[in-house]
Amino acid sequence: MSKLGIVGLGRVGSQILTDVQNLNLFSEIILIDTNKEVASGEALDHSHIQGLSNSTNIDIRVGDYQELADASFIIIASSAPTDPNEGDRVLLAQDNRQMIEAVMSQIQQVTQEAIVILISNPVDTITYIANRFDYPAHKLIGTGTSLETSRFKTLIANHYKIDPKNVEAFVIGEHGQHAVPVWSKVRIHGMSLDEFEALTDVPEIDKANISAKVDQVSMDVFYQKGWTNAAISKVTVNIIQAIALNQRSIIPLTTINYEFGLTDSAFSLPTLIDREGVIQRFEIKLNQSEWIQLKAAHQYIKQTIKQVSKTDK
Amino acid sequence: MSKLGIVGLGRVGSQILTDVQNLNLFSEIILIDTNKEVASGEALDHSHIQGLSNSTNIDIRVGDYQELADASFIIIASSAPTDPNEGDRVLLAQDNRQMIEAVMSQIQQVTQEAIVILISNPVDTITYIANRFDYPAHKLIGTGTSLETSRFKTLIANHYKIDPKNVEAFVIGEHGQHAVPVWSKVRIHGMSLDEFEALTDVPEIDKANISAKVDQVSMDVFYQKGWTNAAISKVTVNIIQAIALNQRSIIPLTTINYEFGLTDSAFSLPTLIDREGVIQRFEIKLNQSEWIQLKAAHQYIKQTIKQVSKTDK
Amino acid sequence: MSKLGIVGLGRVGSQILTDVQNLNLFSEIILIDTNKEVASGEALDHSHIQGLSNSTNIDIRVGDYQELADASFIIIASSAPTDPNEGDRVLLAQDNRQMIEAVMSQIQQVTQEAIVILISNPVDTITYIANRFDYPAHKLIGTGTSLETSRFKTLIANHYKIDPKNVEAFVIGEHGQHAVPVWSKVRIHGMSLDEFEALTDVPEIDKANISAKVDQVSMDVFYQKGWTNAAISKVTVNIIQAIALNQRSIIPLTTINYEFGLTDSAFSLPTLIDREGVIQRFEIKLNQSEWIQLKAAHQYIKQTIKQVSKTDK
Amino acid sequence: MSKLGIVGLGRVGSQILTDVQNLNLFSEIILIDTNKEVASGEALDHSHIQGLSNSTNIDIRVGDYQELADASFIIIASSAPTDPNEGDRVLLAQDNRQMIEAVMSQIQQVTQEAIVILISNPVDTITYIANRFDYPAHKLIGTGTSLETSRFKTLIANHYKIDPKNVEAFVIGEHGQHAVPVWSKVRIHGMSLDEFEALTDVPEIDKANISAKVDQVSMDVFYQKGWTNAAISKVTVNIIQAIALNQRSIIPLTTINYEFGLTDSAFSLPTLIDREGVIQRFEIKLNQSEWIQLKAAHQYIKQTIKQVSKTDK
Repeated sequence: MSKLGIVGLGRVGSQILTDVQNLNLFSEIILIDTNKEVASGEALDHSHIQGLSNSTNIDIRVGDYQELADASFIIIASSAPTDPNEGDRVLLAQDNRQMIEAVMSQIQQVTQEAIVILISNPVDTITYIANRFDYPAHKLIGTGTSLETSRFKTLIANHYKIDPKNVEAFVIGEHGQHAVPVWSKVRIHGMSLDEFEALTDVPEIDKANISAKVDQVSMDVFYQKGWTNAAISKVTVNIIQAIALNQRSIIPLTTINYEFGLTDSAFSLPTLIDREGVIQRFEIKLNQSEWIQLKAAHQYIKQTIKQVSKTDK
Repeated sequence: MSKLGIVGLGRVGSQILTDVQNLNLFSEIILIDTNKEVASGEALDHSHIQGLSNSTNIDIRVGDYQELADASFIIIASSAPTDPNEGDRVLLAQDNRQMIEAVMSQIQQVTQEAIVILISNPVDTITYIANRFDYPAHKLIGTGTSLETSRFKTLIANHYKIDPKNVEAFVIGEHGQHAVPVWSKVRIHGMSLDEFEALTDVPEIDKANISAKVDQVSMDVFYQKGWTNAAISKVTVNIIQAIALNQRSIIPLTTINYEFGLTDSAFSLPTLIDREGVIQRFEIKLNQSEWIQLKAAHQYIKQTIKQVSKTDK
Repeated sequence: MSKLGIVGLGRVGSQILTDVQNLNLFSEIILIDTNKEVASGEALDHSHIQGLSNSTNIDIRVGDYQELADASFIIIASSAPTDPNEGDRVLLAQDNRQMIEAVMSQIQQVTQEAIVILISNPVDTITYIANRFDYPAHKLIGTGTSLETSRFKTLIANHYKIDPKNVEAFVIGEHGQHAVPVWSKVRIHGMSLDEFEALTDVPEIDKANISAKVDQVSMDVFYQKGWTNAAISKVTVNIIQAIALNQRSIIPLTTINYEFGLTDSAFSLPTLIDREGVIQRFEIKLNQSEWIQLKAAHQYIKQTIKQVSKTDK
Repeated sequence: MSKLGIVGLGRVGSQILTDVQNLNLFSEIILIDTNKEVASGEALDHSHIQGLSNSTNIDIRVGDYQELADASFIIIASSAPTDPNEGDRVLLAQDNRQMIEAVMSQIQQVTQEAIVILISNPVDTITYIANRFDYPAHKLIGTGTSLETSRFKTLIANHYKIDPKNVEAFVIGEHGQHAVPVWSKVRIHGMSLDEFEALTDVPEIDKANISAKVDQVSMDVFYQKGWTNAAISKVTVNIIQAIALNQRSIIPLTTINYEFGLTDSAFSLPTLIDREGVIQRFEIKLNQSEWIQLKAAHQYIKQTIKQVSKTDK
């Protein structure tokens, strides 16, 4: 039997509830939100699906942290409200720092076993702060640039008018403006971009433009629909599935960071995960530009952590 | 190749986009919304999923009615904004009447082939009004009480602590307060409720309470989370799948109504559907109470249609 | 983490391996067969799927009983060879009695926790014999007439040209010639057959003919293709899913029997199952003909058990 | 509405029927086999699934070529019997040449529209011969080394104990002993093997051994279980899905060959497919060893075609 906890039932948390209901992984899903009404509404609405012939009758209900004691996964998707017209990330970071501290102090009391997946933004900083609590570091996983990775593949694929699954590409660093698309390792069905372009008549890809878009599309979605949830939810569900089925997948994810001598922060690198959580992070070879960008990402996150840590004195 | 159009990308339309992406039915999805920004945001966000290994690379894009000329399905989920603190259904009906007229006048010009599934509320009235346009009646299908049906099964199943898929139960009439739960035909794995209860030690089911809840839970979800979308979306996707795969399913659905002598309206009855749309509606035997309720539902819808039709004079 | 064991990798066991790989339930699948080569071939062939983008990387391997110690499910699908030209069920029963004794004596030594699903024929007798071992009775589940139930629904639906999911119908008794289709409880979307037929222009259903076919189609499949595996595999996977997700489904299944005073055998009745296995069996009301048939089924199984138990003296 | 034809209901064809039933792509599946009994048995057995709640009610039936006139896909999986103790590929080729001629002469009369997917072995030769008929070449697609590609990824992944979906690797050339694993383009999550191995403590991969296994595992499966069907079926279903949803995927597939100046044969190269079939084949850069192997594959296939073409004079 497998139990999932979702903390935070806003746009992202509720979308994860939708997507995870399509998997067959969990027999119980516990919803936790400071606004119990919202959590209850989501539990009800998603339960009403269960009269349909192709649904599964699983137990979705509002609960409290005590009920996460035997959870196998806990998703943290709660967030202070974001203002679509402002989007001050520092203010958001401060509010969400308090949120993650409140959540982690509860979780650490009831379990040390669950894989905790962090989505709340700024996710790298949030992951770092979560590690201040008494919880195994290899079980604290931020979604990080796994979302940018899916977007990066999609953007490249759209340019070439091919299936994104044929694009081998990924993004590391910060989830946000300091995301680092690793162009030096991009391949199209094993071909370098030069080789691929020579074989087709599509125009040369504009790397700077795509790089800019990797973060920009997030803003596009945000300003156009008011929030982003569809892709981040699927990315999260993918991570859950990889871990739950012990698939030993490599995915760009954020954990507390020791690699490359870039300490005291948390950022995304290709990360091998299994049922226990993080197994290994890969210190991949980067070209000079990528390395500079990664250091900048590290600095930026470190700075954010500092700012956010100061604020409540 | 199969093309889907979604008109209206609010909470419901965007949820349908999510759920339908998990099916393998469509290679193209056209999004139409008076707010093009929102439609674009949803197209982008859902496209970003496609870099994930278990996704499908399908074409999701903002379009216009012209692009629905070769659509196989069109979902109408647009709605005037609902005010969570008021919920005046008559005002909503008037606003949505103008919406459906605007949408249908466009659709009738580009196709007579697509199955049109109507979700906008009050869905029975909306379905009736849609039939004033030049479009084959058997291809205009309101989701009607198919949602209440899923809820009714779930409520009964929850009482008995069993899988809703073991409950044979359905609701007819109006989608809303005049929904008619057909208790006389409820079975639990083939057993009548009396027979089932005699074999178990669960307390007797409180039919009046469940009947009240069939509509009430909709309000509960609405007031608790601010809207309902998860269940209605899955119900809709289920109808699409039944039709697309020509499954010849019987589902309580709303079409323009000729049955039981209750004319000049549209309400839900068990309806046999195939690839062409509606094949047959079943004039099932009802007990006296159910018959009275159905007539009241009919009266109520007829009245709503009249009111709504007057308003713009 | 969830582990599945499959004992017997013939047509049925290998088909279950195929179908179960499509679920997301198991991270490890242990294959056991007296012919280790065959098990190894199936493990290899099914592993080669894992290079595809929409597959899951789970651990499928040949193992031994010791590895089932922490299995959550064990499927017993092994069988002495059946001769398509003879099909002497008594001889088969004797051979499979020895098989089940060999298998259960191994299983009982390594676990008391796994749900054991028995498919080997004659499945009712085999289930009875399995209960002679030191294993919790509520965790020994024969697929029984769950297969006939799916066929019965399909046959009725085909007659009426509707979706079998709209047919509420089931079969109890023996998996085989003494299957008892419970006509008295058949409903079409809540309607009795009389009511449904009155509303349509399909010819009256020939109950005797359908009843005969419920078992006969099994022979048809057997003689036409040489074995039956597609439907029984899906039925089994459905049971696994119902239990694994704790869905509290009611399914006609075979367990050791105490109901109706018909003791000393094992036959199928509607059975409520949850994560722990069997919760309750329903002593449903039958009409006289059904009751006579059920008693005959009971007698037949009891007789088979007796014959089979004698044979090795 | 989408119709699939399966020609040949042996181990492979019946497995495809199983796998394709899990997709939502087809509302009708026509089964054709010279042994109508076998086809009928498979149709029946797979239909009996449809009484289960999570199945779809689609029309699976025995048909004739005339019914393929409006098929969107035709799978050719028929084969002369293979003798597990002999496996004389030339004899098999001769028998299957007659088979494909019989099948193609029927198909060309009823349609020029369906995508025809060829699986029968030797698949490259068979694809070449199919092109002698009046049928659009871009719609005649042999599964070729798409199967070896999945195996190659799996073998590499197993060595490194990672998810095969993280391995970018593929195989070209002949489906069989002259398969060409393109080591020069293998990447692990974007890393070269050298880079990856330097970051882990797994032993260096033995390329020669893996290369040998790419074909050898096929023989292992064949000798161990008596046939191969699980992986080839999933590979085929994957191709169908890519085409049906117009995903524009690149997959190593066999078509009649004009690339690299290696004419008069058919072998596998990375191939871009869309709803119309083959769009482009990629003349990828190979290292010298790979190029030599590819020429040998070409020679071998050309030779087989010649031998097979002579034999019936």
